[in-house]
Amino acid sequence: MAKNKQQNVLIIGAGLCGSLLALRLGQRGYNVSVYEKRPDLRKTKLSAGRSINLAFSDRGNKAMKLVGLEDKVKALCIPMHGRMIHDKHGKTFQSNYSGRDHEFINSISRSGLNALLLDEAEKHENVNLYFNKECLTVDFEQTTALFLDEENNKQFVEDADTIIATDGAGSALRKSYYLGHKFLFSFSQNYLSHGYKELSILPQQNGDYRTYKNALHIWPRGDFMMIALPNLDGSFTVTLFLSYDEGKYCFNNLETEEQVLEFFREEFPDALAMMPNLLDDFFNNPTAPLGTIKCSPWHYQGNTLLMGDAAHAIVPFYGQGMNASFEDVVEFDMVLNNFNGDWKKTFEVYEKNRKKDTDAIADLAIDNFHEMKDHVANPIFQEKRHLEIALEKAFPKDYASKYSLVTFNEHIGYREAMLRGRAQDKAILNLLADKEIDNHTDLKLVLEKVKKETHAILEDDRIARLK
Amino acid sequence: MAKNKQQNVLIIGAGLCGSLLALRLGQRGYNVSVYEKRPDLRKTKLSAGRSINLAFSDRGNKAMKLVGLEDKVKALCIPMHGRMIHDKHGKTFQSNYSGRDHEFINSISRSGLNALLLDEAEKHENVNLYFNKECLTVDFEQTTALFLDEENNKQFVEDADTIIATDGAGSALRKSYYLGHKFLFSFSQNYLSHGYKELSILPQQNGDYRTYKNALHIWPRGDFMMIALPNLDGSFTVTLFLSYDEGKYCFNNLETEEQVLEFFREEFPDALAMMPNLLDDFFNNPTAPLGTIKCSPWHYQGNTLLMGDAAHAIVPFYGQGMNASFEDVVEFDMVLNNFNGDWKKTFEVYEKNRKKDTDAIADLAIDNFHEMKDHVANPIFQEKRHLEIALEKAFPKDYASKYSLVTFNEHIGYREAMLRGRAQDKAILNLLADKEIDNHTDLKLVLEKVKKETHAILEDDRIARLK
Repeated sequence: MAKNKQQNVLIIGAGLCGSLLALRLGQRGYNVSVYEKRPDLRKTKLSAGRSINLAFSDRGNKAMKLVGLEDKVKALCIPMHGRMIHDKHGKTFQSNYSGRDHEFINSISRSGLNALLLDEAEKHENVNLYFNKECLTVDFEQTTALFLDEENNKQFVEDADTIIATDGAGSALRKSYYLGHKFLFSFSQNYLSHGYKELSILPQQNGDYRTYKNALHIWPRGDFMMIALPNLDGSFTVTLFLSYDEGKYCFNNLETEEQVLEFFREEFPDALAMMPNLLDDFFNNPTAPLGTIKCSPWHYQGNTLLMGDAAHAIVPFYGQGMNASFEDVVEFDMVLNNFNGDWKKTFEVYEKNRKKDTDAIADLAIDNFHEMKDHVANPIFQEKRHLEIALEKAFPKDYASKYSLVTFNEHIGYREAMLRGRAQDKAILNLLADKEIDNHTDLKLVLEKVKKETHAILEDDRIARLK
Repeated sequence: MAKNKQQNVLIIGAGLCGSLLALRLGQRGYNVSVYEKRPDLRKTKLSAGRSINLAFSDRGNKAMKLVGLEDKVKALCIPMHGRMIHDKHGKTFQSNYSGRDHEFINSISRSGLNALLLDEAEKHENVNLYFNKECLTVDFEQTTALFLDEENNKQFVEDADTIIATDGAGSALRKSYYLGHKFLFSFSQNYLSHGYKELSILPQQNGDYRTYKNALHIWPRGDFMMIALPNLDGSFTVTLFLSYDEGKYCFNNLETEEQVLEFFREEFPDALAMMPNLLDDFFNNPTAPLGTIKCSPWHYQGNTLLMGDAAHAIVPFYGQGMNASFEDVVEFDMVLNNFNGDWKKTFEVYEKNRKKDTDAIADLAIDNFHEMKDHVANPIFQEKRHLEIALEKAFPKDYASKYSLVTFNEHIGYREAMLRGRAQDKAILNLLADKEIDNHTDLKLVLEKVKKETHAILEDDRIARLK
């Protein structure tokens, strides 16, 4: 099925996934046209209050290796070795992400990384980028897309050999699938009861960080939480996750400056002391919802394909949104190796391989919401983490926690990481609850018991599924 | 908040749920107007090939008791005591639904039951029914609905104190919520890979049934299946559940009469012998999809509410679709007792109480798809059912299988039935696999082991959830 002529690929959206995909397909020699509704972010300022920085880890780095950008991206990274947990009195303790020193996550600037990917994509003369072009609808039967040119307010149609939509959670292609009623389209959008608002901790006057730089800070409060990630300029981007309408404090009842200050004095006094700009941030920045989107099929024949958030938007609590989208490109690239030229087969096999894993990270991300806002402050959870770090230090080749499986084991798919990781968590928590292990038990024995119990849990589940 | 004036309630849809709700609200004294898009089914013939009969069981009967129709409905029922399972050679065996003789399900005519409910609702002068009025959209902020009168092709608007939409899986109100973007609306539509087609086994010339009357017949074939439910006229309504596009035989490749006959000769020879009308049925009746719909919130303020399939459409494999919708009315009626006159509070509390249970029956119904097409033919599953029937016979007050919990224990919510039932299934299957019990074990000991293991499973799960 390989075709001789150079194929024209139209990419909708030049965000992180779209620009990486454009770069990779450019490297492979396709004629790539990218249409982005926003202005070129290398020339304008990103709108405030929307995911200024992101967590970057091994799955994302696998994609950077693929396109030869590992070193350039490393220069944008601030390592975060663990969670720095802040209690209501401002007392902190650090809980590392792994017992292996080389395993950590990074804080990275969304716009910095996106600009790098655009610069690199544009170096290929077969890649063309068009900004201020908003996709309105996609005719997936004709393989054409209708755009609005924001510069002259005129509409135009583009066609291509294939169209890949990386236009995020509000994808125009996905809407065309849904509203088109041309095939059975499974689709879900699920919102958490909580929204989020971005705030900031600015640098000290001398430019230094106001709190410990190399950690992801968490203020867990059971029903809600705040987190902070460092930026290269000495500031932190802070995100408050809070119910819209339930609890003593919620977004709907934080209406006055006095109410906001009272809330922060009561719940986050140490953060408040570092946030003289709190009220400006709070009342200027939007409150945004937290949604999960799943759908299927991602593709229509060999004409169109959804990728990245357009296919699977997830909540941010596992720090895997960007990493999952980057991994999409790696997985897609591998399938292209096998079916180059046959878009239908490529899209089919890609979705079959990939969807189980993006479904899994969506579910894991919701699990982690509860872990971050609540469980991290729970003694038995802390005991589990303590043991796991010790196991990872003592047996670096024989033990990986669920967090490590998901974050640092990019050779394992998210679904397998989820199944093994959940079984292992259940094993340790039950062994601790039944006092079969504790923090004084010989680690070799702990490892054996955890492995045995994890295996038994997976086996019991398998039998119950009648497989 | 109780109001003095008689409240006007507008119900969209006069199907099973809408007509029962109209009857109940009529009994409570509300001014009820029901608008239905189809003609009055008491005066016209139901379109062929779409769920002619349904399974009716204890949760549905609870609603019939509430409105005083238990006896009238019983006259429409054909008891089905168990599954009659047909293998590829036409050999059959029966697997009862319960070890308690008074626990069975019923086959009932959709149109017969719907007609009864409409007749009873209409007896109340404060209930008015309007047919051939299709709801196009609902303005949930203004509590008005736009209709198309199919008789004169004119549109008109109706307002009310509150609007309840019981307009099924394609609900106009739900679409208005989704497309309105006025609030965060969580929504999912998920299709199975399989569709269904209704066929029939007609009566013998003397009017007798061609196969055993008092069972739900199943032809399980692993990847697909056929079922049959009896009708009062001596016929059976047969439903074929088959993949659209996968496997040796699928809807997409059954295109000629010869292909259909070959498929039936190979897979369902005993059924084919009773279906001289197969080819007519197969090529005249539609192939329809199998979808699950979940959403939230169901209500907007106190203005509008989704109920029945409009709020939670499920696949048919647990025989609980109608029963769940009828139970909606019972649950709603109980909440009305507490908050009569305050629609907002009524809707809030109703959804809070009810949604966990309708989510559960949706998931259970998908589980049962795999159970019916595949597991019922699996030796270890059959061994489990054999033991469970024996336990129910020997200890009628101390043991109820998952099927019994869901179907015959209407005092327990679906969610609790699901959690207990799944844990119990897992316990028995693992005890059998580990050879800790078998069909020769003393039943008293079996009961003790199953209870102990079920408890341990639920406890391990609770600890893993950190609750």
